[in-house]
Amino acid sequence: MTVKQLTLPELTEACVRLGVPGVGLWREPVRAYGTEAAAKLVHDAGLAVTTLCRGGFLTAIDPAARADALDDNRAAIDEAVTLGTDTLVLVSGGLPPGSRDLHGARERIADALAVLAPYAGERGVRLAIEPLHPMYASDRCVVSTLDQALDLAERFPVEQVGVVVDTYHLWWDDRAPAAIVRAGDRIHSFQLADWTTPLPAGVLNGRGLIGDGVIDLRAWRERVDAAGYQGPIEVELFNDTLWVRDGVELLTDVAERYVRHAL
Amino acid sequence: MTVKQLTLPELTEACVRLGVPGVGLWREPVRAYGTEAAAKLVHDAGLAVTTLCRGGFLTAIDPAARADALDDNRAAIDEAVTLGTDTLVLVSGGLPPGSRDLHGARERIADALAVLAPYAGERGVRLAIEPLHPMYASDRCVVSTLDQALDLAERFPVEQVGVVVDTYHLWWDDRAPAAIVRAGDRIHSFQLADWTTPLPAGVLNGRGLIGDGVIDLRAWRERVDAAGYQGPIEVELFNDTLWVRDGVELLTDVAERYVRHAL
Repeated sequence: MTVKQLTLPELTEACVRLGVPGVGLWREPVRAYGTEAAAKLVHDAGLAVTTLCRGGFLTAIDPAARADALDDNRAAIDEAVTLGTDTLVLVSGGLPPGSRDLHGARERIADALAVLAPYAGERGVRLAIEPLHPMYASDRCVVSTLDQALDLAERFPVEQVGVVVDTYHLWWDDRAPAAIVRAGDRIHSFQLADWTTPLPAGVLNGRGLIGDGVIDLRAWRERVDAAGYQGPIEVELFNDTLWVRDGVELLTDVAERYVRHAL
Repeated sequence: MTVKQLTLPELTEACVRLGVPGVGLWREPVRAYGTEAAAKLVHDAGLAVTTLCRGGFLTAIDPAARADALDDNRAAIDEAVTLGTDTLVLVSGGLPPGSRDLHGARERIADALAVLAPYAGERGVRLAIEPLHPMYASDRCVVSTLDQALDLAERFPVEQVGVVVDTYHLWWDDRAPAAIVRAGDRIHSFQLADWTTPLPAGVLNGRGLIGDGVIDLRAWRERVDAAGYQGPIEVELFNDTLWVRDGVELLTDVAERYVRHAL
């Protein structure tokens, strides 16, 4: 998504040229390209698929909507298998229309995980709960802190359910460093983005280019390292001002900044 | 600020007519009207000044900027005395330009409070630290949770430094209810606003009209009640779509909604 202006073949070629060893994929462009064709493209180039984004949206109350969500998440798990990644990122979902009950919504996520976690585990896929910044609590994700994500994940085996540490969502939280220690091998994904202001309307597409904002990215990388994390590090940006740039030039910039600010 | 389209005399008259017993004032319109004249206007009408907004912005590193901030806060304390309110709300300030150190910024707030708290206490004014939503952590307020505000406030006597509980800033936080219990008589102000989406660009003026959003306002009022809070309850909205409405009509609407959703 960081360089969504690139086609999958363009992305693959650019990653190989830049020495980027893996890529996190999103379901929509993968499905548009064909999941098996995307898997072959990326693997033939020698790249790993680091994660698949995203499953989740598990907070509905309506039984039909809940059944649809479970079906969609099973499909996402199957797509992860096809792509050869072991990690499906979950964005948990916001409050259903008319609801003011955050706690109830979080418990419905747990109920859904009880169904999905074994399905994922049997297929070698881990569900990674991503806490999103509290500004998304009502409409995208009722899981706002790493501790909340762990409160859910720890009800399941570590090989089935873990968490995502994303600097953009957690940087402000003075309890997140301790939660990273708590998480240990529950950390299934680590993502970087910087915090820049002013935020755009809707606050979805303002994730800052790494190095442009206020987050001490290296400090977060070191915390995750210290917790034992040895998986890939993704740079995940959604930003209208970046998406209008040349994709290969942007990816090159991101790779250079990654070395400078996080490595 | 909720009805900033009204002049102070219009506001005063409308409050009296609606049976609103007190009003929280902001420094800028008060100074424009004249602080002593504003005090006389409001008190002659039989209204209380519930709080004065706002002091704070105490995170600067530069010595001259820090001295200026202390001077400005002393002036705000003096204005609170003139207005006859016992509570000055503090918005602590964001990260200084180029800084990535949230912890350091919070400690500079404590350093400033060590100077300001006795000055306030000698004058019968309480400094009320307002935790702001984490989406403001970089540019407005590095104090993002009620627990962080209490970590600062508890270093000082309760009659000098306390906290503000504002539903807009805290509604998402599953630890806030316990922090309200912890706060007890440190709660110096209680403010209501609702959470509505999408957020506007800059995210400053999107505080939702009470009843329009996802916050269970009555539940928060009951939590604050249970902690022993007996002070005034303010409705504080900054919202471009509300500021274009007729001010008296809006204030009437707010008063009716307060009874319906919070009382």
